[in-house]
Amino acid sequence: MLAAVLHAARSISADQVPDPELIDPTDAIVQVTAACVCGSDLWPYRGVREASGRIGHEFVGVVQEVGAEVRTVKAGDFVIAPFVWSDGTCANCQAGIQTSCLHGGGWGADDRNGHLVDGGQGEFVRVPQADGTLVWAPVSADSPLVPALLSLSDVMGTGHHAALAAGVTRGSTAVVVGDGAVGLSAVLAASRLGAERIIALSSHADRAEMATRFGATDIVGVRGDEAVAAVRELTDGLGAAHVLECVGTTQSWDTAFGATRPGGTIGYVGVPAGLTESFPIRKAFGGNIAVRGGVAPVRAYIPELLADVLDGTLDPSPVFTLELPLTEIAQAYRAMDERTAIKVLVRP
Amino acid sequence: MLAAVLHAARSISADQVPDPELIDPTDAIVQVTAACVCGSDLWPYRGVREASGRIGHEFVGVVQEVGAEVRTVKAGDFVIAPFVWSDGTCANCQAGIQTSCLHGGGWGADDRNGHLVDGGQGEFVRVPQADGTLVWAPVSADSPLVPALLSLSDVMGTGHHAALAAGVTRGSTAVVVGDGAVGLSAVLAASRLGAERIIALSSHADRAEMATRFGATDIVGVRGDEAVAAVRELTDGLGAAHVLECVGTTQSWDTAFGATRPGGTIGYVGVPAGLTESFPIRKAFGGNIAVRGGVAPVRAYIPELLADVLDGTLDPSPVFTLELPLTEIAQAYRAMDERTAIKVLVRP
Repeated sequence: MLAAVLHAARSISADQVPDPELIDPTDAIVQVTAACVCGSDLWPYRGVREASGRIGHEFVGVVQEVGAEVRTVKAGDFVIAPFVWSDGTCANCQAGIQTSCLHGGGWGADDRNGHLVDGGQGEFVRVPQADGTLVWAPVSADSPLVPALLSLSDVMGTGHHAALAAGVTRGSTAVVVGDGAVGLSAVLAASRLGAERIIALSSHADRAEMATRFGATDIVGVRGDEAVAAVRELTDGLGAAHVLECVGTTQSWDTAFGATRPGGTIGYVGVPAGLTESFPIRKAFGGNIAVRGGVAPVRAYIPELLADVLDGTLDPSPVFTLELPLTEIAQAYRAMDERTAIKVLVRP
Repeated sequence: MLAAVLHAARSISADQVPDPELIDPTDAIVQVTAACVCGSDLWPYRGVREASGRIGHEFVGVVQEVGAEVRTVKAGDFVIAPFVWSDGTCANCQAGIQTSCLHGGGWGADDRNGHLVDGGQGEFVRVPQADGTLVWAPVSADSPLVPALLSLSDVMGTGHHAALAAGVTRGSTAVVVGDGAVGLSAVLAASRLGAERIIALSSHADRAEMATRFGATDIVGVRGDEAVAAVRELTDGLGAAHVLECVGTTQSWDTAFGATRPGGTIGYVGVPAGLTESFPIRKAFGGNIAVRGGVAPVRAYIPELLADVLDGTLDPSPVFTLELPLTEIAQAYRAMDERTAIKVLVRP
């Protein structure tokens, strides 16, 4: 089959690799019908984090075959895969932190028995712990809902996690730092949770326009200290009680702290790979600013978000501004890297 | 009057200084009848944070005189002072974060008009924003409740803040890192909030005994990685959902992270002055461990805790294991520095 293989920094192509096969009785084989490139894929792509090999962790598709112990999905089912696999039964999964599953792991790496788990950017994937991992959706692979459903594999659930972690509730004022696909999804999530005022930071007209479409009530188009000053001006000089950090760099954290009022909460989902300075815990201490979030347990959120996608009340699909075949995976990464696309959907 | 003056690292004495006078119409003059030395006083005392001059920020006493605009206390009232002064009316005070009062500040430093605000370790103190700051208690200065009431000026409220920040509720399992006066108060606070299981880390028999008396159900008497292993063994291998960090050093934070289960919360109140390594935000990210707390807005908690002290259901006074006259302030600091006393009560 064809699958994306990262060879070195900025060198990626769709190569012939062995077809996956069932190994454990809890495995399923899924034919990927749509996948995407994640902002976090850019860390190894850019060489910030050294990595090579199979890549990708966001996909939807159709179950081809299941192991003897798989009960909840069967061949022919359309399924959504969250960006980590998990058994759904351990204490951490039961607590809703499937990203810390005691028997789970990531895509594109070895499982605990030394067998490769395929990355999602390929024609097929072996899915370990299929019962805990996959969520069936009552659609066919050619449904127009596929892009929206694909967003539940990571970006929409991650935005939702930021909003929940920041404590957004009905009537809240929230600030969203970051206008990537996660930041925009966070705007949509905050809006869905009933935030009355959503201040989105974006200095790109197209992304600001999408933020507004997703529910932002105010756009701050400047950066850094100027952005902090603008947010404070919009919030009685104090900052907001709920700030969603969706980038993960030193600058974005500085902005997030500056935008949070004393006693407020930063809900963060940006992988802190870009944090070059030490984390400013003293700012958190002095202002009683809570820091909550992390790698989003999107598996916990798929059922709830799926219901809203199916009934038409939630549509994150506009974040996909470019669609390419798997054979053009290099172009997909380039578009994400150069920010000419917000998020790229890849069709194997 | 006599007041403690820090001259240089490890050099402190009770010196003659000018008596305070009313300056602003919102001021009160309080005769201090009991004060104490705080763990955070040791940072300047040890020279870790450079400082000299008037010191102290925990005291109770009797109002001598009030400015023309003071309404809530009058001469003769016994009052408790929280460890910062605040107006009680600004947006941050109204939100319960009096430590971030827009018109408040600390003891032993200049106010916003350049006038010294006396430290609490002295015979008298000028209290700015007396209405917002002081809390009247219906006792006399010779009441046996004075040590318990004095603990509300900082240490008990700080322990309560750690427990609230960590999300301790009825039936919780909590871990307390730190066996200083704040850590012991945090044990008491967690117990008061109904924690079912309280695991206290202490390798000193006297402090462990006090932790048990305050409600700890389990004592872990080892440190570092061994302490983490012991806590995990007590918590199904996962760690606890609520961990109270009451120290503020790199080692105590490592222990706190190791003792927290995925998705759990670290409630922290230890001044992070001892954090020599950068804060491990990536651990927080990977395990979805929330970090919540900071400098405790004890003013918000005094009324509630005071009611319990008055009705006899709360008694943090055992943390004071040594009492000295103000003239022996050097010995008071030495006892705190060398940990021969848990907390020292000073009588001017």
